Amino acid sequence: SNTIKVAVVGGEGIGPEVTDQSHRILKWFSDRRGAPVVLREAQYGLIPYLSTGKVLPDDTLAAMEEADAILWGATGGPETTEVPSAARKAGSLLSLRSKYDLYANLRPIVANPALADSAPLKASVLKDVDFIIIRELTSGIYFGEPRGIETLPDGQRRGFNTQQYTSSQVRRVARTAFELARTRKGRVCSVDKANVLETSVLWREEVTALHEAEFSDVELTHLYVDNAAMQIVRAPSQFDVMVTCNIFGDILSDCAAMASGSLGMLPSASLGPPDRLGRRKALYEPVHGSAPDIAGKGIANPLGSILSVAMMLRITLNRPDDATLLEQAVDTALAAGARTADIAEPGAKRLSTQEMGDAVLNAL
Amino acid sequence: SNTIKVAVVGGEGIGPEVTDQSHRILKWFSDRRGAPVVLREAQYGLIPYLSTGKVLPDDTLAAMEEADAILWGATGGPETTEVPSAARKAGSLLSLRSKYDLYANLRPIVANPALADSAPLKASVLKDVDFIIIRELTSGIYFGEPRGIETLPDGQRRGFNTQQYTSSQVRRVARTAFELARTRKGRVCSVDKANVLETSVLWREEVTALHEAEFSDVELTHLYVDNAAMQIVRAPSQFDVMVTCNIFGDILSDCAAMASGSLGMLPSASLGPPDRLGRRKALYEPVHGSAPDIAGKGIANPLGSILSVAMMLRITLNRPDDATLLEQAVDTALAAGARTADIAEPGAKRLSTQEMGDAVLNAL
Ligand SMILES: CC(C)[C@H](C(=O)O)[C@@H](O)C(=O)O
Ligand SMILES: CC(C)[C@H](C(=O)O)[C@@H](O)C(=O)O
Repeated sequence: SNTIKVAVVGGEGIGPEVTDQSHRILKWFSDRRGAPVVLREAQYGLIPYLSTGKVLPDDTLAAMEEADAILWGATGGPETTEVPSAARKAGSLLSLRSKYDLYANLRPIVANPALADSAPLKASVLKDVDFIIIRELTSGIYFGEPRGIETLPDGQRRGFNTQQYTSSQVRRVARTAFELARTRKGRVCSVDKANVLETSVLWREEVTALHEAEFSDVELTHLYVDNAAMQIVRAPSQFDVMVTCNIFGDILSDCAAMASGSLGMLPSASLGPPDRLGRRKALYEPVHGSAPDIAGKGIANPLGSILSVAMMLRITLNRPDDATLLEQAVDTALAAGARTADIAEPGAKRLSTQEMGDAVLNAL
Repeated sequence: SNTIKVAVVGGEGIGPEVTDQSHRILKWFSDRRGAPVVLREAQYGLIPYLSTGKVLPDDTLAAMEEADAILWGATGGPETTEVPSAARKAGSLLSLRSKYDLYANLRPIVANPALADSAPLKASVLKDVDFIIIRELTSGIYFGEPRGIETLPDGQRRGFNTQQYTSSQVRRVARTAFELARTRKGRVCSVDKANVLETSVLWREEVTALHEAEFSDVELTHLYVDNAAMQIVRAPSQFDVMVTCNIFGDILSDCAAMASGSLGMLPSASLGPPDRLGRRKALYEPVHGSAPDIAGKGIANPLGSILSVAMMLRITLNRPDDATLLEQAVDTALAAGARTADIAEPGAKRLSTQEMGDAVLNAL
């Protein structure tokens, strides 16, 4: 059948609050627009740990296992200190990315005109910002072996990690970038540090070879990562699709976040390898973390999670019209002045998490 | 004697042009203010390569070897293609940093009020920005072994690099940060990725241990590198001294550059280990590169190089009053509207490299 199975996992900190809102909205698309989804909620984190000894209990794992798409909230924060780190690691977000081979992490950066006042960048710099960073998510220095801390003969300690990429790991994520660019402005910028690192030399060679072999209709440029960080602040509108390794993508996407006014606005999708029909297992989550300082207060911005549902509609459900409908509803709500605390000007009215969900639903 | 030996090495691209101006200004401090310097000019790059087969010929090496301070221009650009990469590597900036053990790279980030209009950040964000990034410069992933590209049994290639730090490598650069903080606002922010990388766990533990043992009067905080990138754009005035590893410092300092309006404005100092008298061999250079696209046109901004001379006056020559005098002359020139192309508003008059040097000299 065409039914899409979605696991909804709010997790920890502000994760459950923001996911409640995106969950409501996904249900709206199911009820009102006939989006063929079956939703299954599951728990993650301290609460299941206390009853089962696992942050990722068996039924959550089963829900994620059978799911085509996972709507994920957030994990981490002070709660983590109550869970021993071995139990924490066994079910970590990093281990999930690895388990489902979610190697292509898509992070769109869009400057919403309604938020130009709350962004640290000038309106002139924000003009026409609409790009997407594709971060390789299952290799690189976050996963490379050997790694550890050793004691040297002289009593000193030495910490070490391994940055590493194989040809196919580079090519598959570059392929995602080139394919996506074809549906957009047709431009890919690959970011590396090939003037110093061999991993980056390999990265650049493989991206270039794939480009020549299959994607010469797409424009390909290369930037060193230090220059890329600067250009993202200086003139972010120059970019269409940016592709880079795990750690550079982690840093650059947070740097770019400020073009959208708030980390709370940003959605993401993490995609696995395509099956024979081109379907890819996917995890959708806001870019923000668990924000323990405001957890439970009902003031977090749910738009990152809600816009992640728009990405799900476009990518997993292949319903671009519904995705655009939802994105426009967010624009309408913002244009009408709906603001959570993170994006509000001093003195302006601040909506609760739930009220922001209402504002988007009303605009639908 | 108290005489300070300075090697002046303009190098390639715009390096010689901008160094000509900072050289003039250093001479002014020698002639007019009695700064006890002996200047020795030397060549680097394609030109000496063509006559000697070395980018770093013997007499340049001798000048740098005997120098207390090196005033460095820039290296690299298209000229590099005319020098075989082995010859290039033998005399590279990376190899010099390593040879003289210049492990502490100081990169001040100051938002000049006169340039608020040409910066991509809003005036409200730029208010009171005055911090310094200390980048570890002789270890980490840029130097770690093993490194290379290998062919795997299945024909795939694999690139690998090693991120690594020992306790003493972390402690000595952290010590520079704590000591500097004591002369400033008394705050150090250490940046790592300790939630994922063992090298960062070691980094954080060693910084914390040194802080507890010797610098508990200084305020110490820690940020993950992704969050640091975001905070540098969002609210850069929160920082005083930031200390981090080689690659994170490379990326974050370029990201931070945009708070000052232009990369062309930024100076740097790279310091070696203190001798028994506390003197440290030092290399002073603008943060910008060789900018081959504008080399030879006489339009490059010399202020990064000129402000590097101010750092030399303060650090190597221990003449803080002269350093401040020079910094104030730069402020005066900027406040009076002196602008090279990179910092000029559209339609405004643009000074040449030499004219900007004149403007600073006139303000002295
Ligand atoms: C929590 C952390 C491991 C994670 C990462 O660095 O990948 C987060 O920063 C992110 O960007 O998703
Ligand atoms: C040219 C390059 C090797 C160098 C570096 O990355 O260290 C440069 O970017 C810098 O920041 O000084």
